[in-house]
Amino acid sequence: MTDLVTFGETMLRLSPPQGTRLETTEEFDVRVGGAESNVAVAGASLGLDSVWLSKLPRSPLGRRVVSELRAHGVRTGVAWDDDARLGTYYLEHGGEPRGTNVIYDRADSAVTTVAPEEIPLGVLDDATAFHTTGITPALSDAAAETTRAVLERASEAGATTSFDLNYRSKLWSHAEARETLTDLLEHVDALFVAKRDAEAVLDRDGEAVEVAHGLATDFGFETVVITRGDRGALALHDGEVFEQPVYEADTLDAIGTGDAFVGGFLSKRALGGDIDAALEWGAATASLKRTIAGDLAVVTPEEVERVVAEGDGGISR
Amino acid sequence: MTDLVTFGETMLRLSPPQGTRLETTEEFDVRVGGAESNVAVAGASLGLDSVWLSKLPRSPLGRRVVSELRAHGVRTGVAWDDDARLGTYYLEHGGEPRGTNVIYDRADSAVTTVAPEEIPLGVLDDATAFHTTGITPALSDAAAETTRAVLERASEAGATTSFDLNYRSKLWSHAEARETLTDLLEHVDALFVAKRDAEAVLDRDGEAVEVAHGLATDFGFETVVITRGDRGALALHDGEVFEQPVYEADTLDAIGTGDAFVGGFLSKRALGGDIDAALEWGAATASLKRTIAGDLAVVTPEEVERVVAEGDGGISR
Amino acid sequence: MTDLVTFGETMLRLSPPQGTRLETTEEFDVRVGGAESNVAVAGASLGLDSVWLSKLPRSPLGRRVVSELRAHGVRTGVAWDDDARLGTYYLEHGGEPRGTNVIYDRADSAVTTVAPEEIPLGVLDDATAFHTTGITPALSDAAAETTRAVLERASEAGATTSFDLNYRSKLWSHAEARETLTDLLEHVDALFVAKRDAEAVLDRDGEAVEVAHGLATDFGFETVVITRGDRGALALHDGEVFEQPVYEADTLDAIGTGDAFVGGFLSKRALGGDIDAALEWGAATASLKRTIAGDLAVVTPEEVERVVAEGDGGISR
Amino acid sequence: MTDLVTFGETMLRLSPPQGTRLETTEEFDVRVGGAESNVAVAGASLGLDSVWLSKLPRSPLGRRVVSELRAHGVRTGVAWDDDARLGTYYLEHGGEPRGTNVIYDRADSAVTTVAPEEIPLGVLDDATAFHTTGITPALSDAAAETTRAVLERASEAGATTSFDLNYRSKLWSHAEARETLTDLLEHVDALFVAKRDAEAVLDRDGEAVEVAHGLATDFGFETVVITRGDRGALALHDGEVFEQPVYEADTLDAIGTGDAFVGGFLSKRALGGDIDAALEWGAATASLKRTIAGDLAVVTPEEVERVVAEGDGGISR
Amino acid sequence: MTDLVTFGETMLRLSPPQGTRLETTEEFDVRVGGAESNVAVAGASLGLDSVWLSKLPRSPLGRRVVSELRAHGVRTGVAWDDDARLGTYYLEHGGEPRGTNVIYDRADSAVTTVAPEEIPLGVLDDATAFHTTGITPALSDAAAETTRAVLERASEAGATTSFDLNYRSKLWSHAEARETLTDLLEHVDALFVAKRDAEAVLDRDGEAVEVAHGLATDFGFETVVITRGDRGALALHDGEVFEQPVYEADTLDAIGTGDAFVGGFLSKRALGGDIDAALEWGAATASLKRTIAGDLAVVTPEEVERVVAEGDGGISR
Amino acid sequence: MTDLVTFGETMLRLSPPQGTRLETTEEFDVRVGGAESNVAVAGASLGLDSVWLSKLPRSPLGRRVVSELRAHGVRTGVAWDDDARLGTYYLEHGGEPRGTNVIYDRADSAVTTVAPEEIPLGVLDDATAFHTTGITPALSDAAAETTRAVLERASEAGATTSFDLNYRSKLWSHAEARETLTDLLEHVDALFVAKRDAEAVLDRDGEAVEVAHGLATDFGFETVVITRGDRGALALHDGEVFEQPVYEADTLDAIGTGDAFVGGFLSKRALGGDIDAALEWGAATASLKRTIAGDLAVVTPEEVERVVAEGDGGISR
Repeated sequence: MTDLVTFGETMLRLSPPQGTRLETTEEFDVRVGGAESNVAVAGASLGLDSVWLSKLPRSPLGRRVVSELRAHGVRTGVAWDDDARLGTYYLEHGGEPRGTNVIYDRADSAVTTVAPEEIPLGVLDDATAFHTTGITPALSDAAAETTRAVLERASEAGATTSFDLNYRSKLWSHAEARETLTDLLEHVDALFVAKRDAEAVLDRDGEAVEVAHGLATDFGFETVVITRGDRGALALHDGEVFEQPVYEADTLDAIGTGDAFVGGFLSKRALGGDIDAALEWGAATASLKRTIAGDLAVVTPEEVERVVAEGDGGISR
Repeated sequence: MTDLVTFGETMLRLSPPQGTRLETTEEFDVRVGGAESNVAVAGASLGLDSVWLSKLPRSPLGRRVVSELRAHGVRTGVAWDDDARLGTYYLEHGGEPRGTNVIYDRADSAVTTVAPEEIPLGVLDDATAFHTTGITPALSDAAAETTRAVLERASEAGATTSFDLNYRSKLWSHAEARETLTDLLEHVDALFVAKRDAEAVLDRDGEAVEVAHGLATDFGFETVVITRGDRGALALHDGEVFEQPVYEADTLDAIGTGDAFVGGFLSKRALGGDIDAALEWGAATASLKRTIAGDLAVVTPEEVERVVAEGDGGISR
Repeated sequence: MTDLVTFGETMLRLSPPQGTRLETTEEFDVRVGGAESNVAVAGASLGLDSVWLSKLPRSPLGRRVVSELRAHGVRTGVAWDDDARLGTYYLEHGGEPRGTNVIYDRADSAVTTVAPEEIPLGVLDDATAFHTTGITPALSDAAAETTRAVLERASEAGATTSFDLNYRSKLWSHAEARETLTDLLEHVDALFVAKRDAEAVLDRDGEAVEVAHGLATDFGFETVVITRGDRGALALHDGEVFEQPVYEADTLDAIGTGDAFVGGFLSKRALGGDIDAALEWGAATASLKRTIAGDLAVVTPEEVERVVAEGDGGISR
Repeated sequence: MTDLVTFGETMLRLSPPQGTRLETTEEFDVRVGGAESNVAVAGASLGLDSVWLSKLPRSPLGRRVVSELRAHGVRTGVAWDDDARLGTYYLEHGGEPRGTNVIYDRADSAVTTVAPEEIPLGVLDDATAFHTTGITPALSDAAAETTRAVLERASEAGATTSFDLNYRSKLWSHAEARETLTDLLEHVDALFVAKRDAEAVLDRDGEAVEVAHGLATDFGFETVVITRGDRGALALHDGEVFEQPVYEADTLDAIGTGDAFVGGFLSKRALGGDIDAALEWGAATASLKRTIAGDLAVVTPEEVERVVAEGDGGISR
Repeated sequence: MTDLVTFGETMLRLSPPQGTRLETTEEFDVRVGGAESNVAVAGASLGLDSVWLSKLPRSPLGRRVVSELRAHGVRTGVAWDDDARLGTYYLEHGGEPRGTNVIYDRADSAVTTVAPEEIPLGVLDDATAFHTTGITPALSDAAAETTRAVLERASEAGATTSFDLNYRSKLWSHAEARETLTDLLEHVDALFVAKRDAEAVLDRDGEAVEVAHGLATDFGFETVVITRGDRGALALHDGEVFEQPVYEADTLDAIGTGDAFVGGFLSKRALGGDIDAALEWGAATASLKRTIAGDLAVVTPEEVERVVAEGDGGISR
Repeated sequence: MTDLVTFGETMLRLSPPQGTRLETTEEFDVRVGGAESNVAVAGASLGLDSVWLSKLPRSPLGRRVVSELRAHGVRTGVAWDDDARLGTYYLEHGGEPRGTNVIYDRADSAVTTVAPEEIPLGVLDDATAFHTTGITPALSDAAAETTRAVLERASEAGATTSFDLNYRSKLWSHAEARETLTDLLEHVDALFVAKRDAEAVLDRDGEAVEVAHGLATDFGFETVVITRGDRGALALHDGEVFEQPVYEADTLDAIGTGDAFVGGFLSKRALGGDIDAALEWGAATASLKRTIAGDLAVVTPEEVERVVAEGDGGISR
């Protein structure tokens, strides 16, 4: 029995030291990141048997991705490509008012040619949950087709399917996203969506609770989770509404916060928690992530529980 | 004439870079730390002739400890053990809500077998002050016995003895601490204690001033200093009460703040300051320590005086 | 056509890692910095053809300075000295209350013997603007003499001359500065001065606007820009007054902020902007600089415009 | 089906930068190492499904070990101990004549209390090969007992058992090793032993080939591999003798070379190679390991094959 | 008057620390490298006014390339592309027998769409020398076309044209290279070619001197320089033969050695040296390069002269 | 009783990483070095009670020097100067043929104004040995005068005085050195001198043994030690000749090797060894130093003895 299967692209993440610019840096911190593997790592860290499916170049760089995910306990089901390149992203952290800048160098990466038959979908047959995001179908037509195929297969196999809309303006336009995603969402049980993406991509207006009801009605979602940045998350599940504030955090690296939220939420659900508890785990995992360098939420269930219970850290000695 | 002698364990302190977890780090920052040598270093930095007494393994790691303390001007009186190990502690700094985590790996360290006759206690014969903490007797029966013997010897030799209660829940229970410490405190002239430890270990209730009066009465302390975190310190000395707020600080590393406070306080006292001035030095040394990586308060008397006078830094050029 | 020529000393800047003291550091971050080259770099980054004039030792260290300035697009006009040393400054960043400490080791540097005939002043003949600061004449009599000569030459050639008073208490007294600078300011079209320096060095009292009017009247400046730290800047230009607040920033390295302000202001002016827009560019460049390690404002016009328009960063992906 | 199961202790490996001494270092490179997990990693790198069995503290440090092994593709079967410590070793690399110094701090580590029933021995039921070393039984009586039990279980389950004698003078005397190991070797099919250990621990004299014959006869080994440092290895298998010279290497880190040899040898055997080919793989893996920092042979089958075929690298572009 | 113009691709060069593999590294050293800009940097370092022509993405990464070249004194003539990516190469240094591994990620880089009219070819009008290599035409049809156009333009403008054949097996086959290059070589005055490339790509047999004569005859080269690794170089110039052994070096980074040789040779020629002296400068610059990390020969004419005169370094103090 | 007193300048030592040039480095390794304190550190490491006398600026940089020396067990007797600067030297390590380059920036350092009455010469009253070098008198007239005064005082107090001629061409000419040193040598009991310096500075010809006899006769030295690089050392003591080859070493940092030799020699003498044994300790300490980064011989008596006994290291575990 596998608790959680995810599918998507994972890239090499290259970032200069704090305060140093891409123009002048002589050093990159090297990590891997991708929304779906970030969720799988959060899941594995929190106790799930997690599997990540994708396509990678057969090279030391492709192995670099698998190696880091395995280190965090994620099993990997990878189609290896002899020629293609590894997607890369450059991340420059800047405090205000400079902000954080991401430069994608992910065109023609291995996953853009992925086909359903290349990847070991058999793992879906006894999977409890499947998760992917709106980034994957934005990568290429093949990736969009495969996303649909994998979602269908997961759904048929009885897994709960979840989807984080995760609109990326550097990959496609609102209109392109709307067209592709609307189609995919029919195979989804639980939607995670930022309020601003619901507005811009899914054409929704009004308060979060209205948006959630509208989406649930239109697409038949069992669960809709709307995230609103500092104002916390709202969930609609089987008609019932739940609210969750954020836990405050000293933010060292904000990248991956949303994925940590999803990973925490799905983990608590997979472990039998109700929506309330899942929202708490999501928010706590997200706040812990903010204190950790890299995309990945390297946290324990005990730490998540402590944040839920107390909200803060202090010195333990 | 030696101004200040301290006795206790100093460990190797291993910490991953900011934002990196012990689970995944590939690098440790290496320093040494121990409450009593931290106080000795603060003293030496502030102008005292300071000596630290302890027991260490005869190895490069034992020499590592002596080397770092000597660098800061502390003289060392060490019993060398051919076999025992060096106590180690792993320190993971985390912003909120993750907090700072300390993992001790100090069992069976050299100091756990320390005997009074091994260490050069002669230095106490012309010492003005002696200081130790409630950590040392928690390490082993031998360490507790030696703590008592050294306190007695210091007291007999005419040194002013001070003691920082410093309860560590990872070393012993409240009850164990109470039993051992109550006994030791009879040889102590000045007690430093956190309000929460006074409550939990010494069974005290009420406002800080009441606690101080009660302790002074029950144990015959000449001085009692109660620390209350952000709310500052309160001292009772010869029946008179003094209050000291904290100086604000951009905290980079909070470990060693309490020891810096004690070191600043004892230094000003040794240099002839009254209780008011000693509290100011304690609070200023503590706030400067917070801006410095590592356990040690590497500060100058001029810097401490400037904080007392102005409270802040700016750019000096 | 050259947009901006500056003249002054650039030093090697050596700083220990955050949280580490000069007393104990085993590592220095190595960069170069000097008020006038900082302005030239800001100018080049923002699109100007910038030239920096100075004198350096003919050594790898002298070449280190030229190399870093050229990397940022500044052309250099350097007199090479076979014997003299390179000025150096040690910079220890400390949070509050420790503050930031600068130790100059710049005596007898190459620039202290600079003579006008050594440096390629011909570049001034088609320069739009010339800038220097009150640091250069403080270095030596020769440097003061050459500053005057270069200012005169620039003025005669038709360049707009600007001057940042930049009083440095570690180099000379208020009285010495007043005597030397009063003389030089007659060749200056635009003065930048901190309010506290206007008071202490130029003997001015009252509100910023009065100070500006007084200076404009007494010295015949076309433009006076008064900076007031967190309270922003005030400009008096052809009798008209302009105010500019600061843009908030997460400060990682405050050194060079003032030079970034001047660089941003002069760049917008050279690009045809009016005083209002130049103040906005100055303030935006300064706030961006604060997020960047080192003296230099490595920013783009697009980033400056975004700060002016929006005030903050966020994550762009 | 599992190709290779190993059992033993893995420690945290802490080493200062090249040229820096333990007495003075401010930084440790952090890795994990242990003879048996080193062999498992070499196996996994070379294509085997490898499993490592052991006992670890339930702490971030214990998880650190599992994380690094998993990154290299090794599955782990670990008994978690709530209290015990993680074995640690300090490694100081020094060129000649200083040499490389190892300081063990492994007393009372979790594995010293390991019992057969704690670890998931079921994995042995379908394992092709099992490997352990003479380090494990040196750690404690419990570890020796469990080593015997696991060897027996592996043997009964039909796995080929191999044993690297690996005498460590810092753990026990020749006599102690002889007594304990003689007993264990009856369950071993293939012995790896350095010539000097065969002499000192197993009391053998004469040329390597004689030693091998004697050991094979006395203990009934199917295979004996004698290693002789720079003079290469000699194997006796079913009465036939094979010799293998070393491949030259630019040695960056010699630790783990012997384990890489064993890992290469066992991998080729598991992949169906004969003794000749296995010796080549062993020698090639060992020589590649020498160019890699850390205990682990992070190499590919293609790299090993290239060394066997060509002996060297050059630049591939 | 410009001394040397080069044209080609420069990539971001990412390499893990010595002893660390791409599979596992957490850090990249970041530099830039490309055969033609390497030659331009060697030229600028040795006193030439050098210009590098190319096409880059308009991004911080594109600016990173220009910034590093400018730091070394090279002027840049760049066509900026709003969309294309920057070519990247991953370099893993390994001692023997592991070797050095280069992974190119340069497909679809900006330069692959370069057209002659985009780049500021006017600089060729008063250029003394022009240089490019056989890597550039291998990148794309457009790059090959532009290479031809630029060679023609340089030739027509009266510059001495040189060409380093530089065959890269990861870019094209021997046959493809032969077809494209044969055509280009008609516009070349001086050819640099490794003996093995002359054999494989240009179909030549026999001793170096015969190969040189054959090539000179067939293509009408004024100068042919054949490099033979450790056996040094041979030049044929106007019918006369010159030989040059290599200077021994402690190799820290061999990448860029060939470009340093060409840069040293061309510099001495441009400074008026004869072929003998140019070969000496080439060999000396190449040997110095080997001691320097990165692709670039950051050396001075004085250092090159000292190697030519003495052959070694020692300690100068 | 103090075993060894030395007098001289200690500088801040700044060096870029291996393979990186001063022109381009962004990082300095920071250490301290000076011939006389190097000898004192070797002495303290090998068991002597060592004292170093000098003058330093009263600043964090001056304290940096004292801190590092104290860390190695040296006591310091320092005159503090409120204004002067700290001598600095830049060290660029380069393999062959680049060599190692030292740039001094030591003019006007604090020690150039040193006067005998400023430094605590009382320590000489019970000192067994005193050592200084020919670098100190080269720094300034005051330093030369004080060197003479301290030598005289040491001699009168009954200490054995030793002197390492240590000619530095960047400080003075052969003729200047000859004039000043000839004068000083009359107060010296033991001279250490490189053969090439004996020739160039002291005007000696012929084989080392002849040079030694000549110097002993002319100056009345009890001991003359001539060093000859790779060919080892020769000592003449009370008319008897001793030879000592070098121990081979993997050289990581050659700076300080000569001082380590002197320190090892003097240590063995102070511990009662004869000339033979002292030469062995000198050579062994020197060879160990070569494997250690920095000027300082951080070694133990046990390590020195092992090199004397065995000549090499290997792996100890």
